[in-house]
Amino acid sequence: MAGSSFQALPGFRDFIPRECAIRNYLFETWRSVARRCGYVEYESPVLEDTALYLKKSGGELSAQLFRFEDQGGRDVTLRPEVTASLARLAAEHQRHFPKPLKWFEIGQCFRYEKPQKGRGREFHQFNVDILGEAGPAADAELIALAIETMLAFGFVEGDFVVRVSDRQAWIDFATARGVTAENLPDFLNIVDKIEREKPEVLAQRLAAYQLTPDQIRAFIADPGNSSAAYDAIRADLDARGFGGFVELDLSIVRGLAYYTGVVFEVFDSKKSMRAVAGGGRYDTLVATISDGAVDLPATGFAMGDYVIRNLIEETTHANMQMEVWLQRNAANCDVYLVIADEGRRADSLKLLTDLRRAGISTDYPLNPAKVTKQFQAAGKSGARFALVVGAEYPELKLKILSSRTEESFSAENATEWLTDRLQQPDGPLLA
Amino acid sequence: MAGSSFQALPGFRDFIPRECAIRNYLFETWRSVARRCGYVEYESPVLEDTALYLKKSGGELSAQLFRFEDQGGRDVTLRPEVTASLARLAAEHQRHFPKPLKWFEIGQCFRYEKPQKGRGREFHQFNVDILGEAGPAADAELIALAIETMLAFGFVEGDFVVRVSDRQAWIDFATARGVTAENLPDFLNIVDKIEREKPEVLAQRLAAYQLTPDQIRAFIADPGNSSAAYDAIRADLDARGFGGFVELDLSIVRGLAYYTGVVFEVFDSKKSMRAVAGGGRYDTLVATISDGAVDLPATGFAMGDYVIRNLIEETTHANMQMEVWLQRNAANCDVYLVIADEGRRADSLKLLTDLRRAGISTDYPLNPAKVTKQFQAAGKSGARFALVVGAEYPELKLKILSSRTEESFSAENATEWLTDRLQQPDGPLLA
Repeated sequence: MAGSSFQALPGFRDFIPRECAIRNYLFETWRSVARRCGYVEYESPVLEDTALYLKKSGGELSAQLFRFEDQGGRDVTLRPEVTASLARLAAEHQRHFPKPLKWFEIGQCFRYEKPQKGRGREFHQFNVDILGEAGPAADAELIALAIETMLAFGFVEGDFVVRVSDRQAWIDFATARGVTAENLPDFLNIVDKIEREKPEVLAQRLAAYQLTPDQIRAFIADPGNSSAAYDAIRADLDARGFGGFVELDLSIVRGLAYYTGVVFEVFDSKKSMRAVAGGGRYDTLVATISDGAVDLPATGFAMGDYVIRNLIEETTHANMQMEVWLQRNAANCDVYLVIADEGRRADSLKLLTDLRRAGISTDYPLNPAKVTKQFQAAGKSGARFALVVGAEYPELKLKILSSRTEESFSAENATEWLTDRLQQPDGPLLA
Repeated sequence: MAGSSFQALPGFRDFIPRECAIRNYLFETWRSVARRCGYVEYESPVLEDTALYLKKSGGELSAQLFRFEDQGGRDVTLRPEVTASLARLAAEHQRHFPKPLKWFEIGQCFRYEKPQKGRGREFHQFNVDILGEAGPAADAELIALAIETMLAFGFVEGDFVVRVSDRQAWIDFATARGVTAENLPDFLNIVDKIEREKPEVLAQRLAAYQLTPDQIRAFIADPGNSSAAYDAIRADLDARGFGGFVELDLSIVRGLAYYTGVVFEVFDSKKSMRAVAGGGRYDTLVATISDGAVDLPATGFAMGDYVIRNLIEETTHANMQMEVWLQRNAANCDVYLVIADEGRRADSLKLLTDLRRAGISTDYPLNPAKVTKQFQAAGKSGARFALVVGAEYPELKLKILSSRTEESFSAENATEWLTDRLQQPDGPLLA
């Protein structure tokens, strides 16, 4: 609060430059992985009709909503997630696109929860979905993207694992044992809590279905209980060379009611076994949201920015990759103009403009200052080069700030010279 | 509403893929121009304490706020603009950064206004500010960025003009004629409306200060009334080669009360003379927001996404540049794998993974399909190449979709071959 009588709301972040650069690293990585896997970007509105979320989730998130009445008397909500909006958009626009739709969104979501380490009241989410394809090939392609995303952040085999399950296996199990369709959500909820619920509560809840926790655990433990969809996904991912990242885990059910088939979670395999991303098939949501007007099978996953960032920072090789990116992308500039002769300010401004036009990120002192002060500013700016404009203009001196070595060249060659120097392997990329 | 019982709220946009790609074009252009001019990116929260906005604007925007009480009983508002948040962040964090701060933000803002062509209830804004420098060199550097931004979108001399004014010139004028400090806001408001207000209202309001509309117009018409700051800015921009884009226009005052000195607007010079961007100096805002704890002079401007997009689409050369970008960046993929022999699906998935890993945007059919169907899908995907995996694998056929010509090569060289082909001048860039 130093220096201001206002501060950010609890659970909301100020993205000051380094924080914003880290955010951009996540966004650019997400975006480039999705694009090279053939997904296109969309974005749904930050604010929607509250009924859209209530209809989707059946009230699961309703206690956590930033919900209010707008000036026109509408009941509106800041999006707590984007899948409901995606279903709305897909129902409205799908006829203009060949199937399947492979769409992704990077968007901020809002949930009124208790802020804690690793969780705020706003977070960014990478959402990836394939709509219009009911078969397991779509689930495999989606899981492949989750794996590609982890690899793009620099994670390697052993850092993470994708645990895949299929609600259909549980639906078959339950149906064969007389659980009615009406009771399925309750049954799936018990399975979801199998490792977290108190043993006596678990036993009591399962007794209602003439089942025991051991029967559930035995079903989970038997690899023969994989579904046909899981086997197809597994074969597909093996062909891609991704077999080592995937395992069957029928204890994964995922909380939300709208999942209909294959579900999966990406786990950090070290330390805390946190879920880094999760998703699954939701074949009935588009029909639900569109009141049956459009029926589009779908599968999707989401990855939030909090957990993945923490995992990157805790994993040396992934963190090093991020730091290299930050060094190149979070500096104020690549070249800092030192105006050693104030009589050459007009020439310096022209040179500045030429360098920037050529795509070279360049900064300069707004006011006259001693040359030593200017070199200090150059150092603080993160620039790789100081370019000195002095009395000997148009001859310029280039100081390489890391090595303190020096070169000379003429102003008329400055753009070519610097473009070339910046493209050397150890230099920052062009802006 | 076709196909869905829900739709976006009035004034809110669904960024379906082409719309999202256009948004990305604006964002990437804004970001790259700011970065090459030595500005660093930050982002302030979308939701803030309402008092922050009321304190900044003195209530000017208060009728248009998306304002509500959160679950914790806080009076909060979706940001109508970002400068108030920037002042809060700067007051809190400025001591960690060398001065001046050259910061930019690309963020969504929300105002409850009547939606109409060219105006929604949400819009994206490019905000650029220089904090910690009181002299006109900062204003010149800021105006230079506004001009660089227009040039980066492909606009040329004659397409736009930056009209620069200085509230100080009016303050001097008014003070010399006995207008009290207390009445200055009212006086500036009259000047702001000089071309829009009814003549009789204007005359009546000015009579209170023993002034006539003709005296105001005569002051505006006389180029000798430029301020010292304007003259310095002009000389600076002339040195950069930007003189042809700038003119003195004392009729520019800008509505908001917090401006303290130089103000400017970028106008579309054709047709409607719309303001594309605007800003100016606000030397007292940081002190106001921080209750005097931090005093930081500042100058900044904002450009919204609605007007600039319309202007690009109406200007042939700027629109052509955008369309070229969209063609490269809005396609689903660059390469579409045609699996002509279903027995080669596993090999195709491996090849797909290798191509993607090399940064080549690649898509493929999820399910077996006739080769002609697959070529149709390749065409619709926007891919440049179809890569055919058939019975003769590992020999592959590459079809260039625009020319229908064909080449053959081995799967083991596919990555190098395609990387090289995509880097040819007429090919899409790597993802």
